[in-house]
Amino acid sequence: MNDYSSLIENIKQRIAQGDKSPLYVKVAETVKQAIEQKMLVGGDFLPTERELSDLLGVSRITVRKALDVLDKDGVIVRSRGCGTMISETMEYSLKEAKGFSQQVVLKGKKPDTLWIKKDIIPCSEEIASHLKIAVDESVFLLKRIRYIDDQPVSVEESYVPANLIRDVDDIQMSLYDYFRSQNIIPTRTQSRVSAQLPTDEFLEHLGLKSSVPVLVIKQAAFDTRGKPIEYSVNYCRGDMYVFVAED
Amino acid sequence: MNDYSSLIENIKQRIAQGDKSPLYVKVAETVKQAIEQKMLVGGDFLPTERELSDLLGVSRITVRKALDVLDKDGVIVRSRGCGTMISETMEYSLKEAKGFSQQVVLKGKKPDTLWIKKDIIPCSEEIASHLKIAVDESVFLLKRIRYIDDQPVSVEESYVPANLIRDVDDIQMSLYDYFRSQNIIPTRTQSRVSAQLPTDEFLEHLGLKSSVPVLVIKQAAFDTRGKPIEYSVNYCRGDMYVFVAED
Repeated sequence: MNDYSSLIENIKQRIAQGDKSPLYVKVAETVKQAIEQKMLVGGDFLPTERELSDLLGVSRITVRKALDVLDKDGVIVRSRGCGTMISETMEYSLKEAKGFSQQVVLKGKKPDTLWIKKDIIPCSEEIASHLKIAVDESVFLLKRIRYIDDQPVSVEESYVPANLIRDVDDIQMSLYDYFRSQNIIPTRTQSRVSAQLPTDEFLEHLGLKSSVPVLVIKQAAFDTRGKPIEYSVNYCRGDMYVFVAED
Repeated sequence: MNDYSSLIENIKQRIAQGDKSPLYVKVAETVKQAIEQKMLVGGDFLPTERELSDLLGVSRITVRKALDVLDKDGVIVRSRGCGTMISETMEYSLKEAKGFSQQVVLKGKKPDTLWIKKDIIPCSEEIASHLKIAVDESVFLLKRIRYIDDQPVSVEESYVPANLIRDVDDIQMSLYDYFRSQNIIPTRTQSRVSAQLPTDEFLEHLGLKSSVPVLVIKQAAFDTRGKPIEYSVNYCRGDMYVFVAED
């Protein structure tokens, strides 16, 4: 998109509304809406700070604060000498702060999840140590492939103590939504993130031939009392995902 | 090491000491010391939980709690069906909670750092946005290679506003120690972690030929008042590093 007139028009209309939101919030919000409405898509560039300031008739400080918000929310990427681009990267954060589906929609794209396993298995030593249960106790192995615009982007394996799931068919897109429906509240997470070369299985699941690196995120989640409720291993396309953390 | 007699003897002696540390802390501490003294090295296995409990005459719960501590501190890895191994992986965490040198020493190995750049440069748009300063303002570019037992394992580029460093030659192994000496207290960090294939420059710096994946950690650090004091880009050997985060 090189014609910014509709975007600028929308932002101006939003600014003209009489509510008390700060100007920079109005600017940031309208950019997000423009993406949801596919007026902007991943890979598009925004006008420069100076251009936005001139076109909107607001200060550069306001524009910069709006871009800071969009940057922090993972909506845009500022790159060396190339200006500001709508991000195509998926962010994986602690505690699912930004859910997969929501993020994909915010990029103007279609999310999908395919469950390929919902099995009960005896738990290995490694999984037992993370879930703090006995070896061979029953756990659910939930395995799914995630899609953006029908293209597979990650494979996720979750291990959950069997007694935490009544009816596995009640789990839809989000395991955490299911947990909350059962009054199990994911509260704290620990993550270990590494870079690996893809296994044949990963390449097959993702329908890839070339050797993209894999971002592997191993995450343990705990409930309000500190009891482990999930241990998951997520294999993500390294060219599409970034893990974000803050303290 | 398959003869555990010296390790077991050391732990028993530590347990026999009359201080009030909990038993599991004594066990964990002695394992760490054994590694520092190269009685154990990365890749060695520990006896099983049951064996340790029998050999030491303490409960399995005590052994498990000691292993939990060592696991949490990144000293051991529990692996599927293979028992407990002394970790060879370097952990990169938020806020340099575990400094590089300290971690390497805890693996019974020798750390080293080689500074290859300490230059003042005009700041690019990308770096300016992270440091919240103007484009072209002066920043230090500090670039170093880190070594374990004389083998290069990571390349780190730090960008620091020029006014935060009086004399760049005062910076030794740790930039953060220098900051603290100037009463600049790193308080909060934001990290973005991704997996990439190595560039030719990275392979050359690390003296590698084969294609190891690279764990790329981009981190912004802030002082007590929330002012950015450093933006760093770290390229780490994906087969030796893991990024850890907790919330």
